[in-house]
Amino acid sequence: MPRLVMKFGGTSVANVDRIRNVAAHVAREVAAGYEVAVVVSAMSGKTNELVAWVKDADALYAETEYDAVVASGEQVTSGLLAIALNKAGIRARSWQGWQIPIHTSDAHGSARIEGIDPTNLDAGFARGEVAVIAGFQGVHAETGRIATLGRGGSDTSAVAIAAAIGAERCDIYTDVDGVYTTDPRVVPKAKRMERVTFEEMLEMASLGAKVLQVRSVELAMIHRVPTTVRSSFDPPDAARPGTLICDEDQIVEQQTITGIAFSKDEAQITLRSVKDSPGIAAAIFGPLADANINVDMIIQTVSGDTGSGGTATTDMTFTVPAADYQRARAVLDAQREIIRFGQIEGATDVVKVSAIGVGMRSHAGVAAKAFRALAEKGINIRAITTSEIKFSVLIDAAYTELAVRTLHSLYGLDQA
Amino acid sequence: MPRLVMKFGGTSVANVDRIRNVAAHVAREVAAGYEVAVVVSAMSGKTNELVAWVKDADALYAETEYDAVVASGEQVTSGLLAIALNKAGIRARSWQGWQIPIHTSDAHGSARIEGIDPTNLDAGFARGEVAVIAGFQGVHAETGRIATLGRGGSDTSAVAIAAAIGAERCDIYTDVDGVYTTDPRVVPKAKRMERVTFEEMLEMASLGAKVLQVRSVELAMIHRVPTTVRSSFDPPDAARPGTLICDEDQIVEQQTITGIAFSKDEAQITLRSVKDSPGIAAAIFGPLADANINVDMIIQTVSGDTGSGGTATTDMTFTVPAADYQRARAVLDAQREIIRFGQIEGATDVVKVSAIGVGMRSHAGVAAKAFRALAEKGINIRAITTSEIKFSVLIDAAYTELAVRTLHSLYGLDQA
Repeated sequence: MPRLVMKFGGTSVANVDRIRNVAAHVAREVAAGYEVAVVVSAMSGKTNELVAWVKDADALYAETEYDAVVASGEQVTSGLLAIALNKAGIRARSWQGWQIPIHTSDAHGSARIEGIDPTNLDAGFARGEVAVIAGFQGVHAETGRIATLGRGGSDTSAVAIAAAIGAERCDIYTDVDGVYTTDPRVVPKAKRMERVTFEEMLEMASLGAKVLQVRSVELAMIHRVPTTVRSSFDPPDAARPGTLICDEDQIVEQQTITGIAFSKDEAQITLRSVKDSPGIAAAIFGPLADANINVDMIIQTVSGDTGSGGTATTDMTFTVPAADYQRARAVLDAQREIIRFGQIEGATDVVKVSAIGVGMRSHAGVAAKAFRALAEKGINIRAITTSEIKFSVLIDAAYTELAVRTLHSLYGLDQA
Repeated sequence: MPRLVMKFGGTSVANVDRIRNVAAHVAREVAAGYEVAVVVSAMSGKTNELVAWVKDADALYAETEYDAVVASGEQVTSGLLAIALNKAGIRARSWQGWQIPIHTSDAHGSARIEGIDPTNLDAGFARGEVAVIAGFQGVHAETGRIATLGRGGSDTSAVAIAAAIGAERCDIYTDVDGVYTTDPRVVPKAKRMERVTFEEMLEMASLGAKVLQVRSVELAMIHRVPTTVRSSFDPPDAARPGTLICDEDQIVEQQTITGIAFSKDEAQITLRSVKDSPGIAAAIFGPLADANINVDMIIQTVSGDTGSGGTATTDMTFTVPAADYQRARAVLDAQREIIRFGQIEGATDVVKVSAIGVGMRSHAGVAAKAFRALAEKGINIRAITTSEIKFSVLIDAAYTELAVRTLHSLYGLDQA
């Protein structure tokens, strides 16, 4: 029999009524002939409650104990859904990560899945049982301790399980009905996509679209697991298919640009009058990397000025996650004697707007068109990065909506 | 180093502040030189919340899934207490039942502990760690599923762990400061006992005193684990010792009667004009046993009447748990053709009052004195049972307070 993984997030299992609704969605797929594994998150709000208790007990908590506490949220949902399925006449049992087992690294709080043994799940399917799996967690083999995958980790659990059991598809049920060309709250004309490639979805998730955890898209891409994003709020007997994330060759009409993403989680730092000597980039970015701060966009402008020693100086502009802004400045200040910059400036009221599409690979001038359109609207571009299938611009946060709407129209994404 | 088990119930870990208080109690014992295992219940109210969700999902839930859901409550507390202990500078880690492992039977919802492997806990003690153990649960070895011990099961977990690790003592911290000669809400003159024997405590717990789970006292008696009941609401630096449950030879001044217990959880059934033929007791009590209904007090009165066939008839009176009253009547009605009784009568407004004391073994006439005292107060005794160290009378519920106070005074238990 073909297999299917269905994943339900926190709002989809927020209370017992919603869990009954999930059971009805599962019943539909069982009736359609699938062997089903369901992956569940904690009831919405529960993880936040548990995290608050942990932080109250000690702001500098041990990650191992954080994991023991917060993993309980998914445990509760898995048992309740198994009960609701049994009530609906469907054989089901709950599985905790350690029972399957799902082996993880020992990076507690943000562990990586290292392997899933499908033997126990296979035996359950052979008994005609739906497997209801607590998402977001596994067990570290050597210590036997519960490890969680980090916030949103249930998406990753679902895709990894789909790969391990050879599922035909992984359906991620959530409170939206698919992936949109951009955030519909910003652009009311945003369209739901029928299909999007793994590569595009990965860029969109990385660049600020919050619909899926980045790691889950990576895994889906690596293991070629067709994955959908669809709504658990559709009636179970009239559920729409949502958005399919799939291989490029499964998409007939490929557009140049498929989506516009934006992220407000950016801060800009500029170092003025940096002595432009060999190794200067390493002197700046080495210490930031050591402090676990991810540097994204980097622009180096040769200013043409010469310093007192006669060497040329340059301005260095780059972005860091907004949460790391103050820490990054402190790291750089501590290195001032080594880097020898004139001044440090920064801005947190910036936003990164990105356009994504595999069609960029075969079309020249896609980005140039955008720069022109933004300039015409009077939007100043502070920095640019590009890759094979996306480009990003850093602009003042005040222009976010204007920029996103401009690009959305420019690439023909507005709903008819 | 000597070892100590400390158990904290739901009100003792009701919130993070109370958990910090528990950490302070643990710190005191660590400073006193003990290797400590702490057993915790769920935060008060949590188990009820989880059980309500389970019943909402399906009143006829699978016990295996009930266990998966409700065991999460203790998991949360164990992690939070480990964090609070670390914060207080004490090395600690949480242990779930399956991690130790604590092996149980597969009677999910009311499993029995079958064995505790102390290897992992020993290693933790060797590392200088306090073991913080989720109470109320273990794992069934063959299925690998979480099994819970039934309500109040954390007491049993604590005593079983104390036996397994060779603890010097098991301290049960609760919201009262010890075991009283009777319920202080009924008899304000009730005294806290300094010491009580295992046998007496077992009878008291079985006969209605709710301070400890019966199974935990059984285990303490079998394994001779000195166990105390004491208050977590005492200041950690001025904690009183509570009541010690111990061997008889550790109690110097043994009283005849040490405590008065009562249970309202009783119902009386009387079968009138039962044909008094051989095997009649089996015909009545066999079907009740098959239906898992515990029959307690039994009185058979030969009435002297003869039925139409010339055989003597008798009245049979016995008690069953109040919760099983309707079911017991239905079972008997279904057997009417076989038992051939004239009438069935019943009463639920009855109470069983018991006096317990190992001194009864060496003193004659202890119970007779009570019957006289109750008669003088005009209290009608419906049934009597006695054993080596206790006697019980079944009376009208309206006389509960009067009877308990009368016996409490009679045996010299009133506080000076």
